Amino acid sequence: MKTRAAVAFEAKRPLEIVEVDLEGPRAGEVLVEIKATGICHTDAYTLDGLDSEGIFPSILGHEGAGVVVEVGPGVTSVAVGDHVIPLYTPECRQCKSCLSRKTNLCTAIRATQGKGLMPDGTSRFSYKGQAIAHYMGCSTFSNFTVLPEIAVAKIRKDAPFDKACYVGCGVTTGVGAVVNTAKVEPGANCVVFGLGGIGLNVIQGLKMVGADMIVGVDINPSKEEWGRRFGMTHFVNPTDVPDVVAHLVEMTGGGADYTFDCTGNTVVMRQALEACHRGWGESVIIGVAEASKEIATRPFQLVTGRVWRGSAFGGARGRTDTPKVVDWYMDGKIEIDPMITHTLPLERINEAFDLMHAGESIRSVVVF
Amino acid sequence: MKTRAAVAFEAKRPLEIVEVDLEGPRAGEVLVEIKATGICHTDAYTLDGLDSEGIFPSILGHEGAGVVVEVGPGVTSVAVGDHVIPLYTPECRQCKSCLSRKTNLCTAIRATQGKGLMPDGTSRFSYKGQAIAHYMGCSTFSNFTVLPEIAVAKIRKDAPFDKACYVGCGVTTGVGAVVNTAKVEPGANCVVFGLGGIGLNVIQGLKMVGADMIVGVDINPSKEEWGRRFGMTHFVNPTDVPDVVAHLVEMTGGGADYTFDCTGNTVVMRQALEACHRGWGESVIIGVAEASKEIATRPFQLVTGRVWRGSAFGGARGRTDTPKVVDWYMDGKIEIDPMITHTLPLERINEAFDLMHAGESIRSVVVF
Repeated sequence: MKTRAAVAFEAKRPLEIVEVDLEGPRAGEVLVEIKATGICHTDAYTLDGLDSEGIFPSILGHEGAGVVVEVGPGVTSVAVGDHVIPLYTPECRQCKSCLSRKTNLCTAIRATQGKGLMPDGTSRFSYKGQAIAHYMGCSTFSNFTVLPEIAVAKIRKDAPFDKACYVGCGVTTGVGAVVNTAKVEPGANCVVFGLGGIGLNVIQGLKMVGADMIVGVDINPSKEEWGRRFGMTHFVNPTDVPDVVAHLVEMTGGGADYTFDCTGNTVVMRQALEACHRGWGESVIIGVAEASKEIATRPFQLVTGRVWRGSAFGGARGRTDTPKVVDWYMDGKIEIDPMITHTLPLERINEAFDLMHAGESIRSVVVF
Repeated sequence: MKTRAAVAFEAKRPLEIVEVDLEGPRAGEVLVEIKATGICHTDAYTLDGLDSEGIFPSILGHEGAGVVVEVGPGVTSVAVGDHVIPLYTPECRQCKSCLSRKTNLCTAIRATQGKGLMPDGTSRFSYKGQAIAHYMGCSTFSNFTVLPEIAVAKIRKDAPFDKACYVGCGVTTGVGAVVNTAKVEPGANCVVFGLGGIGLNVIQGLKMVGADMIVGVDINPSKEEWGRRFGMTHFVNPTDVPDVVAHLVEMTGGGADYTFDCTGNTVVMRQALEACHRGWGESVIIGVAEASKEIATRPFQLVTGRVWRGSAFGGARGRTDTPKVVDWYMDGKIEIDPMITHTLPLERINEAFDLMHAGESIRSVVVF
């Protein structure tokens, strides 16, 4: 079949909207009509050529929502007509990772996914006879895409696609870091570094679970209003205080119970750890740092009880937990609508990247 | 009263055995006759002048066992005749830390203890009219010492003092890191870096809880026999392999479930983290690093599921958990006797430091 897609033919060049060829689903695969897709920093990171493992030409996009239109042989967990969210972190429920009960990082199709291929080692996309790589196992910048069955989460049918798509990455990454990774308890004092989309989702996750203090930290004063909109109780601009760690420790009565880095800056990651309470404070790294950067601290920080951990896709098991996040949205426990600052047709997808780079959007969504 | 004690009059000088003056217990305090005391690296660290907060003159020693011979007003939890282990980490059961249920690092008397004083801000020891500082709230290198009630753990009376004293630091630090901090589950694959006294106690803790692989890592090949004696199943000498992390990851089928640093070397601490399994491996820092040293890694290690934490006094709540460790010893679940390689009278305490520095002892114990 043919499908419209925004293709990344090479790094550092705008996407091109073309008709590509798409093969139908093979065994264990499903064909999904993508109805909406978010544009995430990770897409930009790859498009800008910063990811040394980036593959071109490829069809980017990993934050989508759509409808199953065809299933390949042997598919049992979803059916034609089901509404689904593509998963860049699949959930096979059979690999060592899934069976560990300790991580969401399913390894069933990791090797091929990293190479831009389907699990059988081939691509379903091509253009003028040349194969086009899949991206993060999703390629949601295509109106139709093929996904392994284990990489789609079935969601309720009354969730609007142009909002539910954001659950495919940003919302789950932020809210999940609170719920699944840190397991924040009611009454906790928390600090969130970086009030972009992920930071705001961490904040609303903290609000949902009943955190007490929710301190937001950002060097951009305009973020304060955004933070408060989603439940932030205190705001700190690091440029306004002589020592942001000491300031936060004092504010929180000895340090935070939980801190979250949503900046990707390794200096901030250290501050986030050291702003934790002696004895039990836990710091969660969510932001993705530049490849060569390292985090550092004195081991004394850990020996005296602080814990340093990280979170990928909010610790969410794709098929099990993502539908719950959609439920939380539909039940009004979390918000998505105000974060979708821009909605554009596919033809204007490059504008969404421009808005992101200019810091003018929280999240842009493309609808097909 | 008078008591014999080994006094550290100044840094880098041998201890001197003299008779010092000791005031009796005040409110909330107990007088303990120390029957035996271990000599630990921390005592040497202070005596060698490496601890910038070291105070002289002082009476070192923090790994003792003895008998309560007098109690001050208001003492209710122990009585004359009780056998006790002095606690450098007290347990008041009333401070924010104790009530958090998340840490053993009681803060009730932290400020005065760090200054070498009893909680009321004074010392009970003096020599020729000059005050002598307490050390780590214990000063077990004195035949008699005064301790806050919250800093003694009551233990069973049939436990031999010259073995039970080791529970006051080394045994609990190692076994507790497994049981309380990492909470290792049966079947886990674990790696222990550094097979000194702490490392051996980690190993026997892992054996006790039913770990599967217990890999010991040490650059000294003579440690292999010691490790196997306490339950180590595999030995790796880092000098025998090109890349110790890769080697350990391969050995453990993808990385360890838990690793323990018992070296104090920050380079090894990084190896211990990176030898953990993607998704869930946890690394526990037990060793104490030089003051200026920092640990570092790529944040990707944490984002992909590894956890970095530390352990002080094995995460043991002093009064609650230490007696259990003594029970485990008396029940044969853990061993202490073979680790006590040297037992000496107080007069020969400086020899115990020499043996430690020469690497000839696992643990030396001084008996009064």
